Amino acid sequence: MFTHNVRVYWEDTDAGGIVFYANYLKFMERARTEWLRSSGISQQALKLETGGMFVVTDTQLKYLQPARLDDLLSVSAEIIEKGRASIKIKQEIRLSPAQNMREQLSNQELPALICQGTICIAWVDAGTLKPGRIPSFVLEALN
Amino acid sequence: MFTHNVRVYWEDTDAGGIVFYANYLKFMERARTEWLRSSGISQQALKLETGGMFVVTDTQLKYLQPARLDDLLSVSAEIIEKGRASIKIKQEIRLSPAQNMREQLSNQELPALICQGTICIAWVDAGTLKPGRIPSFVLEALN
Amino acid sequence: MFTHNVRVYWEDTDAGGIVFYANYLKFMERARTEWLRSSGISQQALKLETGGMFVVTDTQLKYLQPARLDDLLSVSAEIIEKGRASIKIKQEIRLSPAQNMREQLSNQELPALICQGTICIAWVDAGTLKPGRIPSFVLEALN
Amino acid sequence: MFTHNVRVYWEDTDAGGIVFYANYLKFMERARTEWLRSSGISQQALKLETGGMFVVTDTQLKYLQPARLDDLLSVSAEIIEKGRASIKIKQEIRLSPAQNMREQLSNQELPALICQGTICIAWVDAGTLKPGRIPSFVLEALN
Repeated sequence: MFTHNVRVYWEDTDAGGIVFYANYLKFMERARTEWLRSSGISQQALKLETGGMFVVTDTQLKYLQPARLDDLLSVSAEIIEKGRASIKIKQEIRLSPAQNMREQLSNQELPALICQGTICIAWVDAGTLKPGRIPSFVLEALN
Repeated sequence: MFTHNVRVYWEDTDAGGIVFYANYLKFMERARTEWLRSSGISQQALKLETGGMFVVTDTQLKYLQPARLDDLLSVSAEIIEKGRASIKIKQEIRLSPAQNMREQLSNQELPALICQGTICIAWVDAGTLKPGRIPSFVLEALN
Repeated sequence: MFTHNVRVYWEDTDAGGIVFYANYLKFMERARTEWLRSSGISQQALKLETGGMFVVTDTQLKYLQPARLDDLLSVSAEIIEKGRASIKIKQEIRLSPAQNMREQLSNQELPALICQGTICIAWVDAGTLKPGRIPSFVLEALN
Repeated sequence: MFTHNVRVYWEDTDAGGIVFYANYLKFMERARTEWLRSSGISQQALKLETGGMFVVTDTQLKYLQPARLDDLLSVSAEIIEKGRASIKIKQEIRLSPAQNMREQLSNQELPALICQGTICIAWVDAGTLKPGRIPSFVLEALN
């Protein structure tokens, strides 16, 4: 399964002392972007070449444990449904076992599950935003 | 039903030319905050007085239509489940019929539904982040 | 002098318990946008009509006092230099004297200066991003 | 000189099709954080151990060229003034020569300077936010 590491910076936290929950959507998108890139797909190039792009149509997230400043997170991405026009992706965010700072401060068993979600993305025309079919070379790259 | 108006600024948009989807969570939180304030509850004062705060534990969002720069949005908040420790809130984001700029440019029937969501919030101790009971005066204020 | 009120929400704060400094740039931009709007200029419509837009080319900010969750801020915008291709704007962010929550909690003399800045904006073609002359009707509207 | 790579994601861009200027402050902070970490300093641990933290007191930025979705940026950090209570840091953001996507699309001479800035940070008590002396082991680590 594809995973991408994300470090928590000041910008990601809020006055509760923890990561602001909306920012997990950003972390998940970074992981999806790197997962596409690892399959040879750059979204900027894709938009220039095909005139289309993915948009997010549905997000479901559960926030299970807080992440904090300096935490290193591991964000996964895994296709659970693949259609001609849309893709459903399961994503999990865990404390990264290898480099996490808090690991040095405690004996907690790692990696803890911070956040899990299901994200639906659909293909649209970048100009009109009308739905369309995902280009076949993109679907193939994701196999 | 409580509604709060939110204007779309450059900061809210992305290179797709539309509002970045994660930002709808921010708009919904602003509406919840103003809805609490309209019931006499300031979260900063609440935290200082009770040592507790609300955290978001679950979000489900559908993105139906894009919003754009300069749009004026109307964000609703409505309790659909109320427990001793958590509250489930239904929220909708629509183009605001009164002042929207695009209304002047077209004859589209407004207000269109941009985004709808269900947000669960739970009460926690602000220091330990452990779950607790929502203070009764807060629950009463929300009736 | 034009001023625009901005409320501080969770999204604006960081784990230091205060507004994340980069967000003051957002607050200043909201005030500039509303100041343009109050002169009859909508940036989205302007982009569609003229093919051009303002971009920020230079920012200088001093952060003098922290703002906190629930604070109501008053953000000013005032032209200090106006050229054919660019405009320099002085902006100040103060606690809003009228509605601020903290006012009720203390006898501190208000309004305190939170942040002050100088922002330069320049006109560019929205497609090529090449510099150009600010449309004369925009310059006139700003008088 | 210390440099840290930052990838541009959707979250970083705005409807102008380029990186939203306020986000360069975030990129610079990520680089400062990694530069501190490379000197053995974790800010979260530092706050827990000393009760103090750095806050940003002054930022001056020039935006020279736009960065775009998928660009890989190289962000530098270099001390230009070091006092007992504050530090002035020069930072530059360039297209990263090694992995940049646009490099493959054009023959433009790289790396172009995207943004340059001077950031002042000062040491404060994390509770009261009152200025204080930077702990000597922090100053030494930065030599």
